[in-house]
Amino acid sequence: MRKIDLNADMGESFGDWTLGNDAALMGIVTSANIACGFHAGDPDVMAKTMALAVARGVGIGAHPGFPDLQGFGRRRMVIAPETLGNMIRYQLGAAMAMARAAGGTIGHFKLHGALSNMATTDMALAQTCFAAARDIAPEIIMLVLVNTPMQTAAEAMGCNWVGEVFADRAYNDDCSLVDRRLPGAVIHDPAVAAQRMRDMVREGAIITETGQRIAANFGTICVHGDTPEAIDIAKAVRRGLEGDGVAVRGFG
Amino acid sequence: MRKIDLNADMGESFGDWTLGNDAALMGIVTSANIACGFHAGDPDVMAKTMALAVARGVGIGAHPGFPDLQGFGRRRMVIAPETLGNMIRYQLGAAMAMARAAGGTIGHFKLHGALSNMATTDMALAQTCFAAARDIAPEIIMLVLVNTPMQTAAEAMGCNWVGEVFADRAYNDDCSLVDRRLPGAVIHDPAVAAQRMRDMVREGAIITETGQRIAANFGTICVHGDTPEAIDIAKAVRRGLEGDGVAVRGFG
Amino acid sequence: MRKIDLNADMGESFGDWTLGNDAALMGIVTSANIACGFHAGDPDVMAKTMALAVARGVGIGAHPGFPDLQGFGRRRMVIAPETLGNMIRYQLGAAMAMARAAGGTIGHFKLHGALSNMATTDMALAQTCFAAARDIAPEIIMLVLVNTPMQTAAEAMGCNWVGEVFADRAYNDDCSLVDRRLPGAVIHDPAVAAQRMRDMVREGAIITETGQRIAANFGTICVHGDTPEAIDIAKAVRRGLEGDGVAVRGFG
Amino acid sequence: MRKIDLNADMGESFGDWTLGNDAALMGIVTSANIACGFHAGDPDVMAKTMALAVARGVGIGAHPGFPDLQGFGRRRMVIAPETLGNMIRYQLGAAMAMARAAGGTIGHFKLHGALSNMATTDMALAQTCFAAARDIAPEIIMLVLVNTPMQTAAEAMGCNWVGEVFADRAYNDDCSLVDRRLPGAVIHDPAVAAQRMRDMVREGAIITETGQRIAANFGTICVHGDTPEAIDIAKAVRRGLEGDGVAVRGFG
Repeated sequence: MRKIDLNADMGESFGDWTLGNDAALMGIVTSANIACGFHAGDPDVMAKTMALAVARGVGIGAHPGFPDLQGFGRRRMVIAPETLGNMIRYQLGAAMAMARAAGGTIGHFKLHGALSNMATTDMALAQTCFAAARDIAPEIIMLVLVNTPMQTAAEAMGCNWVGEVFADRAYNDDCSLVDRRLPGAVIHDPAVAAQRMRDMVREGAIITETGQRIAANFGTICVHGDTPEAIDIAKAVRRGLEGDGVAVRGFG
Repeated sequence: MRKIDLNADMGESFGDWTLGNDAALMGIVTSANIACGFHAGDPDVMAKTMALAVARGVGIGAHPGFPDLQGFGRRRMVIAPETLGNMIRYQLGAAMAMARAAGGTIGHFKLHGALSNMATTDMALAQTCFAAARDIAPEIIMLVLVNTPMQTAAEAMGCNWVGEVFADRAYNDDCSLVDRRLPGAVIHDPAVAAQRMRDMVREGAIITETGQRIAANFGTICVHGDTPEAIDIAKAVRRGLEGDGVAVRGFG
Repeated sequence: MRKIDLNADMGESFGDWTLGNDAALMGIVTSANIACGFHAGDPDVMAKTMALAVARGVGIGAHPGFPDLQGFGRRRMVIAPETLGNMIRYQLGAAMAMARAAGGTIGHFKLHGALSNMATTDMALAQTCFAAARDIAPEIIMLVLVNTPMQTAAEAMGCNWVGEVFADRAYNDDCSLVDRRLPGAVIHDPAVAAQRMRDMVREGAIITETGQRIAANFGTICVHGDTPEAIDIAKAVRRGLEGDGVAVRGFG
Repeated sequence: MRKIDLNADMGESFGDWTLGNDAALMGIVTSANIACGFHAGDPDVMAKTMALAVARGVGIGAHPGFPDLQGFGRRRMVIAPETLGNMIRYQLGAAMAMARAAGGTIGHFKLHGALSNMATTDMALAQTCFAAARDIAPEIIMLVLVNTPMQTAAEAMGCNWVGEVFADRAYNDDCSLVDRRLPGAVIHDPAVAAQRMRDMVREGAIITETGQRIAANFGTICVHGDTPEAIDIAKAVRRGLEGDGVAVRGFG
């Protein structure tokens, strides 16, 4: 029986400001990527989100980003590798402590926002981040955008890793995501997203915009939860896969 | 043979701004209280300071404070206990990760600045902080201002704790520190400070401003390092105690 | 013909996080108190909110607070007067620039959150803030909680000021607000709030919890906009007053 | 009689952390570029530095940078033009208020750190920043690295501007600065720096590393003050120019 994990970004509120529908997502996904306070999240938000994940049996991952609250970690920053490594270690350590206090553990690691985008194409940057994470948690599982230099980085280092595809994004023929600003780049129809994921899981391949099939070793699907529509996509993807007899469960 | 620990606050630089003489202090003290990024310190500063401590065999402690860089954690803030607990867990977890990466471990815990001042007289506040620290590190040693409600808090909770006296501060008869703004509150003469510490260690007592002796169970002396004078005081205290046959060594 | 201003706090979003219903409020109130980036708001949020106010003919006020994003400026901080004055000058100057760029001007000044609560009962603190504001904008109108030491401060300094009452809060007999945690402290029924405001405006008096009438010189009513209910209260208050022939218009 | 301005970056302390020798520099230079709180400086530091400038008759400029205290504004960030413009307006407005409170006015505008480096070669970026500054202060004088796209930007917009050269940096043949990491890029010898400035002012030209003379319209020389050596360079440059009969005075 095939199995797959569903992951989503959570814990992205900050102070009095709320973002996302974490409670709704917790009933759908099997892994939560939780912001660590640099681009979003704060110690209270982390505590609440992790407690919720523990209660729902959802796997907890650290989701570190650039130190840029106003930009939500989505603005590119040029940071020296040693400094970036220290930022990763700091955020991961904080997340591990918050998970422990919530009665859980950090099982996986996923880069956020601009840092993730940069590390997807820059193997050295990805390695800096993964090495920093392993300094603190040697067995941690890296989520990597499948078939990219980020995956190559994790493989070359001998990391534990799981490949990831996106439920709501179109793919270029090199397995990169189609630029969000182009038409068709983002999938809004739950039925379309669900069918795509059923096909990709069944075929074990990325299906690109041009219809190519590119074999890919992925074990998790990223869904979003910022909008009601996104929640519907997440539900539809899960139902579609389960209808195909795929077990939706954490990779932990 | 009696023994005593010397501790100092370190890692209080931030970004391009340096503060203190950590390198000089590392040769004198046996325990370093290292800022955790909320009131001072940043991931780079923490990494460098902890590496230095490991290299010099100095014990590493987490030194969390209020989230207030501009005020250096010295401005009182009224923060709800649950939030404060989460801030403590977050900072301690981050510090533990940075220590691990530096090849060391966090052995002790000391509150900084206004948070420390408030927790010295407010037992409930001290317990909130100590409970949060123990959630993450059950065996961690709390540094407490000796003979204060902070000590009572640690005792009542059954924490590992070590009592602390200050080398350069005068004491009131209730074992609180004389207000810094009053004449004689701060000791500037290394010889005076050294003699006071020799007397207090020999007698096992706080010697107050009025000359009273109050029995006190302390195992560490706090010295400072912000000024050349402070470094001289630290050196004089150490030499004085060693001349009396007291072993200056970590409590770890 | 009597007239009154309606004011509300706005521009309290931050980065990707939105808060409040500024667009809805802009059609109801005549004055907007706009956060200045220390406790909420950022330069983009300020620019958008001020542009909206200019477009709707709503008066723009600076709404400075403590430097505490995570706590939304609602946590008390002990800040030295000189430093607090500089923080006020900085925030007001920034707000004046953003208003100028939006084609408007800052007409009034209102303290936010814990800083406001503290200055309501601490005349010296209120004077520190008002003096700082006048350094930058000598004619600016201070919003003061009517019949409190904050009003006394503004009067003693010869400031331009307008007294303020709250549409959704019960009053003690000394004209302070009933503690938010007590039953009946917050009014949730639009009809009740509207009737109270009609009575208070007609009588020119605060009506306290015990039914006392205390003469009060107020020219503005604070309404909130965080919830759909709050918007309904704001609308009901406006309609009620207009039904009584009161002109709802800015004090500028 | 020829004249020239000497400028230096100041007000780069933050909270309890001090940086630079502002008091020493104030006796040497004629213009101070004062940090605005995003990359360095805080309202207190701005107030003190501007008061010092007013007392010494030194011209005050706003020196805005990226919102990155830990990186001191020296890390490149990719920020959307509208957001960057708002950040400039906010910082300049705050600086104008602080100057007013200090009894002075903001006369000039100079970009800091990575933002300056990026705007030196990116005309569109420079124009975004200059346009934002002029929204708030139409007559403000832009300091531009002479003979670069930043100068072209200011000219094309019809800004008031003054060209700037660096006392302690070698120049490439295209009038860009030699990369700081290359040998000879930074001049450490006061006598060498002073002679270079005498030559460049007398010839009205940049003298490049290869000895070329490139005519350049500059009216200010940037000196630094972070080190005792830098202070000596600043003094030597001033004495050298005055010895040649050049009037060292502000461009205001």
